[in-house]
Amino acid sequence: MPRFYYEDFEQGSVEMFGSRTVTREEIVGFAAEFDPQPMHLDEQAARRTPLGGLAASGWHSCAIMMRLIADGFILESSCMGSPGIEELKWLKPVRPGDRLSARRTVLETRASKSRPAMGFVRFRFELVNQNGETVVEQTNFIMFGRRAPEVLR
Amino acid sequence: MPRFYYEDFEQGSVEMFGSRTVTREEIVGFAAEFDPQPMHLDEQAARRTPLGGLAASGWHSCAIMMRLIADGFILESSCMGSPGIEELKWLKPVRPGDRLSARRTVLETRASKSRPAMGFVRFRFELVNQNGETVVEQTNFIMFGRRAPEVLR
Repeated sequence: MPRFYYEDFEQGSVEMFGSRTVTREEIVGFAAEFDPQPMHLDEQAARRTPLGGLAASGWHSCAIMMRLIADGFILESSCMGSPGIEELKWLKPVRPGDRLSARRTVLETRASKSRPAMGFVRFRFELVNQNGETVVEQTNFIMFGRRAPEVLR
Repeated sequence: MPRFYYEDFEQGSVEMFGSRTVTREEIVGFAAEFDPQPMHLDEQAARRTPLGGLAASGWHSCAIMMRLIADGFILESSCMGSPGIEELKWLKPVRPGDRLSARRTVLETRASKSRPAMGFVRFRFELVNQNGETVVEQTNFIMFGRRAPEVLR
């Protein structure tokens, strides 16, 4: 039985989840597989790029944020997936040794008209580093099962 | 020397890049690391979810698309990074055995006012499967170095 249903997300609520330290090996390993640009692979080459030094692929940062929110609440929820991302900003580089947490803000909740057993929750998720800087910001809807859909039938 | 600069992206042009077959092992491996929801990890459990069977994490699909466009043109370009994603849609599940390609459409090009050596290109990227179905669609700006910034000074 999930712990968190659609009804458990309160508009305006803010929570922080986890922390995870990113290593150079992880940054280079992800980049070698999915985003082998010099700024994600090699310190020397990265210094000559706009990032000014080795930094994680933006997609790696997103994947790390996903893991933080999965462990934070998604795996204990009635999550039914997400249609996509409304907006995603890579605001600052993620460097080797950074300690990252996820901040979740509930922007809006909306029951599904066509599917009474489901509801949509619109979140802002931020990936925050050890200095309190937001490095990634995204806004998106996630679908959740409802706690008591039978009352609506 | 890069092969593709800001000037080489023509508004309205469409190109396809690569193909890559996704294995069950890759799907489960990515999920175990970044998105350990049952629908991405286990066939039996996945059948009872809205996806109706094992499917890749949406972030895995994005990472695969990144690799296809990296090999397709980014690694040979004067790419200076991207500020983020305007919109990202996960339209259909990515299944084990799917053969994926990336479609690139140049939506708009815009010289930078503040930095004459740089320009912005707005793309639509689509991840397309072996049946011609678009499974992921995203719109975003990428910054590129210009071929001949000196003429602008």
